[in-house]
Amino acid sequence: MKLPARFVIIGADAAGMSAASEARRCAPDLEIVAFDRNGFASYSQCGLPYLIGGLVEDHNRLIARTVGEFAQRGIVVRLGHDVTAIDANRRVVRVRELESGAETEHAYNCLLIATGASPLRPLVPGLDLAGVFHLDVLEDAIAMQDYLREHRPRRAVIVGGGYIGLEMAENLVRLGLQVRLVQRSQQLFPSVDVEIAASLDGELKRHGVDLSLCDSVLEACEGKGGRVADVHTSRGEVPADLVILATGVRPNVEVARTAGVDCGSTGAIAVDDHLRTNVPDIFAAGDCAEHWRRILGRPTWLPLGTTANKQGRIAGRNAAGGEERFAGIVGTAVTRVFDLKVGRTGLSEREAAEAGLACVATSLDSTDHAGYLPDAQSLTVKLVAEQATGRLLGGQAVGRGGVAKRIDVLATALYTGLTVEDLTRLDLAYAPPFNSVWDPVQAAATDLLRRA
Amino acid sequence: MKLPARFVIIGADAAGMSAASEARRCAPDLEIVAFDRNGFASYSQCGLPYLIGGLVEDHNRLIARTVGEFAQRGIVVRLGHDVTAIDANRRVVRVRELESGAETEHAYNCLLIATGASPLRPLVPGLDLAGVFHLDVLEDAIAMQDYLREHRPRRAVIVGGGYIGLEMAENLVRLGLQVRLVQRSQQLFPSVDVEIAASLDGELKRHGVDLSLCDSVLEACEGKGGRVADVHTSRGEVPADLVILATGVRPNVEVARTAGVDCGSTGAIAVDDHLRTNVPDIFAAGDCAEHWRRILGRPTWLPLGTTANKQGRIAGRNAAGGEERFAGIVGTAVTRVFDLKVGRTGLSEREAAEAGLACVATSLDSTDHAGYLPDAQSLTVKLVAEQATGRLLGGQAVGRGGVAKRIDVLATALYTGLTVEDLTRLDLAYAPPFNSVWDPVQAAATDLLRRA
Repeated sequence: MKLPARFVIIGADAAGMSAASEARRCAPDLEIVAFDRNGFASYSQCGLPYLIGGLVEDHNRLIARTVGEFAQRGIVVRLGHDVTAIDANRRVVRVRELESGAETEHAYNCLLIATGASPLRPLVPGLDLAGVFHLDVLEDAIAMQDYLREHRPRRAVIVGGGYIGLEMAENLVRLGLQVRLVQRSQQLFPSVDVEIAASLDGELKRHGVDLSLCDSVLEACEGKGGRVADVHTSRGEVPADLVILATGVRPNVEVARTAGVDCGSTGAIAVDDHLRTNVPDIFAAGDCAEHWRRILGRPTWLPLGTTANKQGRIAGRNAAGGEERFAGIVGTAVTRVFDLKVGRTGLSEREAAEAGLACVATSLDSTDHAGYLPDAQSLTVKLVAEQATGRLLGGQAVGRGGVAKRIDVLATALYTGLTVEDLTRLDLAYAPPFNSVWDPVQAAATDLLRRA
Repeated sequence: MKLPARFVIIGADAAGMSAASEARRCAPDLEIVAFDRNGFASYSQCGLPYLIGGLVEDHNRLIARTVGEFAQRGIVVRLGHDVTAIDANRRVVRVRELESGAETEHAYNCLLIATGASPLRPLVPGLDLAGVFHLDVLEDAIAMQDYLREHRPRRAVIVGGGYIGLEMAENLVRLGLQVRLVQRSQQLFPSVDVEIAASLDGELKRHGVDLSLCDSVLEACEGKGGRVADVHTSRGEVPADLVILATGVRPNVEVARTAGVDCGSTGAIAVDDHLRTNVPDIFAAGDCAEHWRRILGRPTWLPLGTTANKQGRIAGRNAAGGEERFAGIVGTAVTRVFDLKVGRTGLSEREAAEAGLACVATSLDSTDHAGYLPDAQSLTVKLVAEQATGRLLGGQAVGRGGVAKRIDVLATALYTGLTVEDLTRLDLAYAPPFNSVWDPVQAAATDLLRRA
């Protein structure tokens, strides 16, 4: 009797569980087991700031599918189980059950590493005090909620002005806290160009956030009961009874290394277009893996939930015997900061320059829909194009409405390599409540063509 | 001394004035004259329902550029001048000044016919009564505003459930009128499939609109002072002191015919990819001309402001000696009906069937953004694809938010001929306030792939 093949997944996050579901669809008899050191599987990590801000009433609402629901589909999820090592020769993983400390070995025919990413912590004293949090897994958010309930902090310092820092600023202000945002560089949301990011400064200040640019945290200081009370930054000392660290993440590649899995120059796990690592029968997907960047034609590392879901699905299909290629990313992201939305796709002007691409760019101010309607909002669209060919390289947008719409048009255009001239030819939807007869994307494209 | 070339434009609407502006940009010395029988040039026709509803305060706000501003750029606009005939052999147009009745001839080297479209009027008695309006040119809207102010009608009958009828229903309800909408077929907004259009019925009723499907107007009856007081329809008699006719339009091709310009099978003026007619040095653009439909690979007639602007710009460039091709349309439209938005692009399932294309389709209900956020709204996305190839043929969406965004992604995908599988690979923007980690477009694409 031939045993069914066994697909083992390390990490029950978006990538891991997408892979499990897809493998189940493709191979009804495949044995599928996912291990995760944490206590929750398959939830929306991007929803955590809104859970803390109270827009999401209950953390269970963030869970897409429960362990029980996976079990009903024949997918075993073992939470609180840390995979400590992979023996690729014997095709086993070593698993430690965190509660009991018991160690066991589990065989696999095919393995997926979906270990995600973990927060980078600044190397400064005091970050182990109570009241200092990062926002990585659901447990972090629940712990922060408990702390908020119990100690009612009033003054928060957020360290880091990327999207988690910005979303946490919005949500802590929603809870009534005084918020200071400390950002090391002189620009928030560094994945957009400086003139697009500049709008964020005013929006934060308008909502009472105390913004401290070109500043870094030096130390968190203890007050009563082992809890944080002050933060020293390079610009001075500020009282803080809550500190959020949001200074970026790094890929979790330790367990992959035990199997001899190679990382690429980005530090994340190198994968081919089938998401195979260099070790036979070991795949990697999601925030721990590299991501093929279409426009640059090389791997990058841009950990995002959308990509994790896509890679997970493809890895799951291939683990079940499929032959699907990951099409790559163009590099799309969007966030809301209070009433302002900001998004980007492709390459920023700075990224294009760093990649050695001679480019032309324009930023055009217009309105999200017909300017003669009373609720029209200002919208700025930036386009970046290759100078020699007119090929679109990237786009950014900022405004109170219609940002994600324009970013998605540009992301779709980038997927197929459209030129700026093509943008003017698109047959986009028009009615006065939605845009002008030339959509802002097309107006910006026309402007760029006339300048070039 | 060589006289400068003379570019004459018949029609000062979106197509005509886009052509004038573009020709001016390309050829600073070109003499440019536009004639129009009406009293306004270069305004947003699509804004007229909102002008009547009071969302646009003043009709001057709808005017993109005044006659004086055109004059400053060396573009002569002669309003109230009706071009009655074209003599293509002598290269002259015959022009009648409507106020004086004076007729003159004007020479051209190059001519653009941008005569637009005019409302179709049902052939029933009583439609010449006061209080019966159609909404074609700005004068119609101003006359309707005057009538509303003077006679304060309370009960309106709108004939026709296309986008003008629907937008007028919204705007008349905004003014406090009781509105009955009479639609000949059993479906509103016939350019979408029936299950998408069905949502509109409930939205109209929710706002107090009395919807009468499978009904047609038979007669408008006189009350006091030559004004309409009742409407007979095939379902009975209803009191009405305001009647709006919105039963479609036909292309204005009469003056083109005087020059021997050919129309296509659609009834609109046939043009090549440079927007040239069959008569040398005569171009046509906008609502009077045919529109190349990319997906079908043949001319259609789909009069819309976006297309008029695009064609006008290209005709203007070519009239000034350029060599630009019209890329064609995919067939995109969107409208808002109270709080509901509905849009379409490409081919509907019915249109695909009519074109003889074997297709597969799905309609998927989801939410415009993450369902765990409190303001998530339901959104339905329909996709239509070619059965044999998986090529996307069209898409539709209906919901309270995020409709135009999804339509524009699909319109961009259709422009380049993406497949449904490609849709699942797009790197679209994601954050919980904007969508789910798989955007509704991608969720629908996945659903369609699993069914196929």
